[in-house]
Amino acid sequence: MPTDALVAADLVGIAAFALSGALVAVRKPLDIFGVLVLAGATGLGGGFLRDVLIGATPPAALQDWRYLLVPVLAGLVAFRFHPALGRVERKIAVFDAAGMGLFCVTGAVKALEFGLEPVAAALMGMVTAIGGGVFRDLLAGRVPVVLREELYAFPALLGSTLAVVAVGWDLDEVWVIVPGALLAFGYRMIALRRGWHAPLPPGMDGY
Amino acid sequence: MPTDALVAADLVGIAAFALSGALVAVRKPLDIFGVLVLAGATGLGGGFLRDVLIGATPPAALQDWRYLLVPVLAGLVAFRFHPALGRVERKIAVFDAAGMGLFCVTGAVKALEFGLEPVAAALMGMVTAIGGGVFRDLLAGRVPVVLREELYAFPALLGSTLAVVAVGWDLDEVWVIVPGALLAFGYRMIALRRGWHAPLPPGMDGY
Amino acid sequence: MPTDALVAADLVGIAAFALSGALVAVRKPLDIFGVLVLAGATGLGGGFLRDVLIGATPPAALQDWRYLLVPVLAGLVAFRFHPALGRVERKIAVFDAAGMGLFCVTGAVKALEFGLEPVAAALMGMVTAIGGGVFRDLLAGRVPVVLREELYAFPALLGSTLAVVAVGWDLDEVWVIVPGALLAFGYRMIALRRGWHAPLPPGMDGY
Repeated sequence: MPTDALVAADLVGIAAFALSGALVAVRKPLDIFGVLVLAGATGLGGGFLRDVLIGATPPAALQDWRYLLVPVLAGLVAFRFHPALGRVERKIAVFDAAGMGLFCVTGAVKALEFGLEPVAAALMGMVTAIGGGVFRDLLAGRVPVVLREELYAFPALLGSTLAVVAVGWDLDEVWVIVPGALLAFGYRMIALRRGWHAPLPPGMDGY
Repeated sequence: MPTDALVAADLVGIAAFALSGALVAVRKPLDIFGVLVLAGATGLGGGFLRDVLIGATPPAALQDWRYLLVPVLAGLVAFRFHPALGRVERKIAVFDAAGMGLFCVTGAVKALEFGLEPVAAALMGMVTAIGGGVFRDLLAGRVPVVLREELYAFPALLGSTLAVVAVGWDLDEVWVIVPGALLAFGYRMIALRRGWHAPLPPGMDGY
Repeated sequence: MPTDALVAADLVGIAAFALSGALVAVRKPLDIFGVLVLAGATGLGGGFLRDVLIGATPPAALQDWRYLLVPVLAGLVAFRFHPALGRVERKIAVFDAAGMGLFCVTGAVKALEFGLEPVAAALMGMVTAIGGGVFRDLLAGRVPVVLREELYAFPALLGSTLAVVAVGWDLDEVWVIVPGALLAFGYRMIALRRGWHAPLPPGMDGY
């Protein structure tokens, strides 16, 4: 089941997360190697976390040169062409949401392949989707995006749940990947743009 | 040997750590999903770290729905009823100490089951006990509790050592769990309350 | 191939990283247990990360008492004799560079032994070399050294690449270890002392 479509989704997700990490690095600004390290940690971190937790070691990223090439290229592109990428903080959020949307699906599907139950697989998809951004933000000294106020973990969980359901219905892989990824990405982007947020603890709304 | 008593100790430890994480999130304040994510990361983080290090993947928490339900419930309770929980920072410390006391025992016992030597198993118990709080504090941008000045790692190591000794003596599982957990929890709480602290580096006492 | 020379290189690297972690802890100042925890996390963290990623669990450090003893001794030495170690921040950088130089080699060689391809093994050596310092700096609330402006990841990658090449040429283990470690350590120290730095993103040089 690690089909071409799933590998492609994984690689595009890695590229998106790597771009978000590289742009965070460019903004500090870090030097070329710092940019590449943060691109790599962000792009590959979520997948490493998933693979280590489900026992799929060594991670695919260490056995397939494309997984290594993609974050390097993304890092170089961000390094060289960052002004053309426009307002940086906004681009970081868009690439981050794209990586999150793709990883929640590929993480959930890979967890199913390794024998996890559907609920655990959906959560593993969410963890995969969250992981890269958490590594990026911890390394860069930012508050992890998943713990800032906007909706993040919830869209990821919705997307991974949709993917798990689609696998259960034996749908074609395109129908496993696209709706889940679009739901997670779209929900996240709309929430960001409209300033939606989830309920705060009772008595804390005044903040 | 993953007996009912040990699983129960693990689940209570997860609940305690999850409550500590959820309360840290409530205090910031984070939204409901942020609270659940931090409850989950704190409650399950130490065990994930232990399972990954001893090669017990996928972690029990991904194969047993109770391990997933407990932090969710703890997060919801903390989110909804946090004012009833009284002075938050103090409750965080109590729940954290309870989780630490239980995890140092269950971590050490599980490490022994996976063939680690006694000394390594005691250290793994300490790492398990420390892990959840470290994840919580890193994610929340707090100095990790284990690196603040109060006694933390030492009580955890004492508790896990006691559990390793009890396993070596072939004691009943209640005698493996309770004395070690109580020693670690009690020592930690007394140290906190009395302001005990371990020696500082020579020449640094004046700080 | 886990020969005496490689184990020795690993242990010296652990001692160097543990000293760097212990000195960071002494400077804060943390108490004796905080010093030992940071010494252990820094000394063993990179190797744990490597072993978990390549599937070599439980890590060697949990199966061999020397791996546990070395960071404890390093922590005690730093705790007791830190004034004799001279200007602390400078010593941290030297020990850190020594650990980095040795770990990039031992990490790459161990990855090769576990069947990784040469390019992945060189990157794993770099990750091993970076890992300990990242754990140390995250725990201590410092910006990770690899993301500060001086050259760090690049020397580590050069050293690990040299080691991978030397293994490919079937060279004697001394020739695998020494040139790679010296290249990484020497390059890093010269870059530090001369203030060399890698290129910044275009348009960001004025910072």
